[in-house]
Order: sequence, then C-alpha cells, then structure tokens
Amino acid sequence: MERGRIRHTVTFALVHPPDSDDETDFLEAAQQLASIPGVEAFEILSEVSPKNDYRFGISMEFADRAAYEAYNDHPDHVRFVQTFWVPRVADFLEIDYTAR
Amino acid sequence: MERGRIRHTVTFALVHPPDSDDETDFLEAAQQLASIPGVEAFEILSEVSPKNDYRFGISMEFADRAAYEAYNDHPDHVRFVQTFWVPRVADFLEIDYTAR
Repeated sequence: MERGRIRHTVTFALVHPPDSDDETDFLEAAQQLASIPGVEAFEILSEVSPKNDYRFGISMEFADRAAYEAYNDHPDHVRFVQTFWVPRVADFLEIDYTAR
Repeated sequence: MERGRIRHTVTFALVHPPDSDDETDFLEAAQQLASIPGVEAFEILSEVSPKNDYRFGISMEFADRAAYEAYNDHPDHVRFVQTFWVPRVADFLEIDYTAR
C-alpha cells in the first residue's frame, strides 16, 4: 500500500440468521457504500477464521485522511449507519491500516 | 479478491515501547515470513484506528487453503511464533477473509 493511503476495514456479525433474506438485504445495502466518492478497492468479504465470531468484513481504501473523513461525513454513509448498521449489526471491530 | 483465495490478517500490539529497538527487531523478524512458500501480497502495516488498541497489522494472501496450512506448519513460521510472537506480542486478533 502506498504511503498516505488508508485501508479502512470493519469485521462484523449480523443479528440475522446466516443466508437469510435479511442478511442479503443488509449486504446489498452495504454494497452501495462503494459508490460514495473517494471509496476505492471496496470489498465485502466472508470472515472465515475459527478464532473469532465475526462473519463478514468490509474493506475499502482512501487516498488520504481527507477522503476518509469525507466518506465518514457523507450523508449516504450516515444514513446507512443509522438505518442498517446500528439496528442490524450484533458485533463489530474497526481496524484501519496505513503503510509503515 | 479471487474466489478460493484467503487473506490472512492479524492485528496486534507488542510488549515493547513504540519506536524501540526491540520493536524494530520484532518487525524485521516478522518481515521474514514473506519468504515462506505460498505467501503472497505480504504487508506489515500500522494500525491507526482510535477505536482499538492494536498498533500493527500483518496481511498476506494464499491461493487456497492448502497453501495456508502449509504456511502454518512451515518450520520458519513455527519458529517465529515460538521465538518472537509468544514472548513479545501483548494482544492480537486474527481475521481471515475470503471472497463472497
């Protein structure tokens, strides 16, 4: 990863049963975050380590901290957090990486 | 990420003071893991989220589960865990991702 870039990741588990329609609905809503300006290398992933209880991950990159902050403050992101994330995510951990 | 590939990540904090010689020593030893057969896209990263207490990350990819298991069992990895990881890592979390 280039210096200055930020890889923002969050691993999480949903309140919904695996492979349920609600799960699909959440993941489709999360996919829309990829369209927010500044979001690069967007991925929705399965978490498969037996050493934790998270089941999904979202990973995205930003060119710099200003782009990350613009994403955080973007109304589409704020709306997603309020409408989908808070009511439907059972547990999560945010991990953000930069080059050393 | 292509289907079947595994992105193995671990976020961690060391027992050593920030920017200490011991920290540098640990990270140099960790860098050698990149030479183990099957390891791809190896990165040592800084963890910068204020929402957790981890300070570093290691991320690597494997073509498939067999490559991941061969890495886990490789004597250079086993030796690193025994000699560096166990005595010097204060806290860590492994997170492994695959494509959905």
